[in-house]
Amino acid sequence: MLYEISEKAIRLENEGKKIIKFNLGDPDQPTPHEIIEAAFEAMKQGKTKYSSSAGEKILREELASIHNVSADNVVITTGSKWAIFSLMFLLLRKRGNLVIPTPHWTSYELIAKSLGAEIRFLKTEIGSDWKIDVGKLSDLVDQKTRLVILNNPNNPTSKIIDEEVLEEIVQVANEKGVTILSDEVYSDISFVKTKSILDFGDNHILVKSFSKTFAMTGWRIGYGIVKRELAEKMMKLNQITLTNVPVFVQHAALKALEMRERIAKEIREDYKQRADWACNILTKTTMKFSRPDSPFYLFPKYDGLDSESFALKLLDNGVAIAPGTAFGDYREHFRIALTVPQEEMEIGLKKICETLR
Amino acid sequence: MLYEISEKAIRLENEGKKIIKFNLGDPDQPTPHEIIEAAFEAMKQGKTKYSSSAGEKILREELASIHNVSADNVVITTGSKWAIFSLMFLLLRKRGNLVIPTPHWTSYELIAKSLGAEIRFLKTEIGSDWKIDVGKLSDLVDQKTRLVILNNPNNPTSKIIDEEVLEEIVQVANEKGVTILSDEVYSDISFVKTKSILDFGDNHILVKSFSKTFAMTGWRIGYGIVKRELAEKMMKLNQITLTNVPVFVQHAALKALEMRERIAKEIREDYKQRADWACNILTKTTMKFSRPDSPFYLFPKYDGLDSESFALKLLDNGVAIAPGTAFGDYREHFRIALTVPQEEMEIGLKKICETLR
Repeated sequence: MLYEISEKAIRLENEGKKIIKFNLGDPDQPTPHEIIEAAFEAMKQGKTKYSSSAGEKILREELASIHNVSADNVVITTGSKWAIFSLMFLLLRKRGNLVIPTPHWTSYELIAKSLGAEIRFLKTEIGSDWKIDVGKLSDLVDQKTRLVILNNPNNPTSKIIDEEVLEEIVQVANEKGVTILSDEVYSDISFVKTKSILDFGDNHILVKSFSKTFAMTGWRIGYGIVKRELAEKMMKLNQITLTNVPVFVQHAALKALEMRERIAKEIREDYKQRADWACNILTKTTMKFSRPDSPFYLFPKYDGLDSESFALKLLDNGVAIAPGTAFGDYREHFRIALTVPQEEMEIGLKKICETLR
Repeated sequence: MLYEISEKAIRLENEGKKIIKFNLGDPDQPTPHEIIEAAFEAMKQGKTKYSSSAGEKILREELASIHNVSADNVVITTGSKWAIFSLMFLLLRKRGNLVIPTPHWTSYELIAKSLGAEIRFLKTEIGSDWKIDVGKLSDLVDQKTRLVILNNPNNPTSKIIDEEVLEEIVQVANEKGVTILSDEVYSDISFVKTKSILDFGDNHILVKSFSKTFAMTGWRIGYGIVKRELAEKMMKLNQITLTNVPVFVQHAALKALEMRERIAKEIREDYKQRADWACNILTKTTMKFSRPDSPFYLFPKYDGLDSESFALKLLDNGVAIAPGTAFGDYREHFRIALTVPQEEMEIGLKKICETLR
């Protein structure tokens, strides 16, 4: 129901209604102007032609050096979402299954379903602070399991996976010969440091994005770091689907990487303040919630809530949120993205509390 | 082998080699600066966020008015290639078959194969000036046929389909209840007018692109015009793959549409001159070829040629072409895209003639 809410919010806006959009992890900050200028310069230099389906060599090399891999392992994609779709398309075609801890980003489930793959959900709960039970995860993996999806930090809980738990998960995956796809799109702006899947060798897959770290959501650029053979397959799938991410967008991304320490710090600090402020308000309510380790989300629970009808009711009231059911079996939860300006956050949270009453 | 040649040409360029790129339908003209400025303005206005997976309302409405359909029928895609991939993904999943007249654009075959669909090729030949035999087409269509692909004007032959033949094909499709996917990305810059599939009612699918008409290949924007129900499905597939075409790219496309008469005329006239010039040269050789009805390609035949080894040999010689086998059973043909500056065309054609000898 996440995308229905999103399209409906856009329709209402097109009709001239004011909508406070707590429903999307889309920072309200503009893309830094240096990045925009870099794109413009690249366009003027004629970087508006077809190019490599693997991505520009210069960008792949820069990312390779950041992640300490070879450029052959890096594939530039139309957002991290496309990296995830194409990896699932390539790895789940012979109808294997995949394991997804929940709550999970909506798209994992929708993509897997669109490919006819069997999904095995592993539920985590607010009561145990969203900890993954590695024993249970191990039980879910069998001969036909192709992928375990990790989202670290997690959307919608904003929690990171404890290093110890992550180590245990990797151990299980390695023992059972299963690939982990680790979606770490929030890691560079996380409040709390966590390990990357790449810290555990090159057996597994890292997916990242420029969207969240650099306020570049609408530019549609991300990447996968994978084994060379899989990189080749991703490139071939790009050839028959997208051709390439616009080269001028890749040059904007290069500029973003140049400034990454500064921009990531700004985003991180800004969202830490927002999170602290919002948590202070939620503390005064009867909602249960976890303190976030990373931007942008809170995923509170309100006992007895039907979050889908709540989301629709709120939207009529000018506030868009994501119902908990968009992330799995979490009807009493809902997700708030703190990606709106302060004054809107205040009005929005107030309307949420009023509507809950 | 088309994409292998393309990636190899890029690799050689990255190594500092000069390659005359006859292999890609990528106009050497820059994207008109007004279009670049429009993208820059949109970026500065903050059009760098997530947006509708169907495309911007304003662009869909403009395209709807051009094609005399409703905006609900228009879906903006990451190039026409993505429109084609997603339509095949949606329509061929239950493993139907599709009919493709040959020679055909490489991607149709690769996409269908990647989806496990059965392809039925319908060969056309230079001897009959690439005319489609409608009787044979009708014989290939059966209960499990989901799509007939038309490419009008055709890549690689640059021929348009006669109106009469097109009418017969539509009649067969309508009688048999099969959908035609008509890829008309070259129609706006065609030297010869032809009918669009939309002129035959709303049973079928039109796919178009901004790439060729506006020298915007690397921007990755195209669209599909389909029935409302299918548009909804395409939008949902966009939601779990690409999210949206960057909004600033859609605003660049809007600017392009504003200037479409002028730009299309310029491209058309320029390529008509190039085609006439190149045909004059080919006339003096023993190659057989058809006079093109549209930009950008010539698809000559040289008796006894092995076009794959010829393409590799030529590439070592600094000229990239596409071997005929990339378009079906056409080993003795090769495709030249006249998308390089005049002085390069001269050198390139000379090298081709020398290498053939």
